[in-house]
Amino acid sequence: MAIQRHDVGPRMSKAVVHGDTVYLAGLTADKTAGKSVGEQTKEILSLIDHYLKECGTDKSKLLRANIWITDISKFNEMNKEWDAWVSPGNTPARATVEAKLAAANLNVEIMVVAAK
Amino acid sequence: MAIQRHDVGPRMSKAVVHGDTVYLAGLTADKTAGKSVGEQTKEILSLIDHYLKECGTDKSKLLRANIWITDISKFNEMNKEWDAWVSPGNTPARATVEAKLAAANLNVEIMVVAAK
Amino acid sequence: MAIQRHDVGPRMSKAVVHGDTVYLAGLTADKTAGKSVGEQTKEILSLIDHYLKECGTDKSKLLRANIWITDISKFNEMNKEWDAWVSPGNTPARATVEAKLAAANLNVEIMVVAAK
Repeated sequence: MAIQRHDVGPRMSKAVVHGDTVYLAGLTADKTAGKSVGEQTKEILSLIDHYLKECGTDKSKLLRANIWITDISKFNEMNKEWDAWVSPGNTPARATVEAKLAAANLNVEIMVVAAK
Repeated sequence: MAIQRHDVGPRMSKAVVHGDTVYLAGLTADKTAGKSVGEQTKEILSLIDHYLKECGTDKSKLLRANIWITDISKFNEMNKEWDAWVSPGNTPARATVEAKLAAANLNVEIMVVAAK
Repeated sequence: MAIQRHDVGPRMSKAVVHGDTVYLAGLTADKTAGKSVGEQTKEILSLIDHYLKECGTDKSKLLRANIWITDISKFNEMNKEWDAWVSPGNTPARATVEAKLAAANLNVEIMVVAAK
């Protein structure tokens, strides 16, 4: 099966397509870095939409999601954005845990696998 | 390839089947929430059995497992249940790290990928 | 699709191949346990090369990587080894977060998925 990579950097690619499985990188906020969990989540979800589209798919085909938040007490704040964003009836298998992230101004990271 | 979802909620699905790959959600204790790591692990493993069966497969086809425990010093207590449960000769690729989970009465979370 | 397991232990396998997808375990240092993040990362990456080879593939076909480090302030030290190791133009989707690991002398763990 062919491998197609998108937004390929020297460290990682933002999206990798293998056959009809799409692996996105752990995405974090850019414009909203330093802002609230809700704002960062919203930006990350729009980045996921963007990369899924680049790979020829969309959120209705999400298979799996891993979410890390730096403060698990903000779980509901993150979920508010997530619940509003997911495709009803097409929600992925998901796990959310607390973890410190690569930069101090980031409070959410989301990594998904989708079908194509 | 078709996508089939099981136990679909507004936030996540408990199991998602894509072709012959099965993705389960990060599962946590229900009845044993608040109890020991060993008891919660045992319940989670029985939930995994349940969802794998719903997807037409079983633990002998596990491919990958991610385990989070809130206190890594309980690693052996978790492993005691895990080692007794896995299918000999058919163990998955596995990683276990410490992480705080979504609710204070949960001390283990397990997320697996299996073949169908 | 056939499942092939490599280095099968009673708890986990080091590599599991399902069709043309290769799942490696979360790998940690052996010889360099207790040494620096850079040294442990270097050893882990050579272990990844070893197991990918055993599965009939190599790092140019990496799809996804999860990295855990016990001290996120060592992010750059880990990346120095990673960046020197990856196959240019073939970098995987990647996420790195901080987490405590199973033994006190381990400071990095890496788990990858690759194509075959």
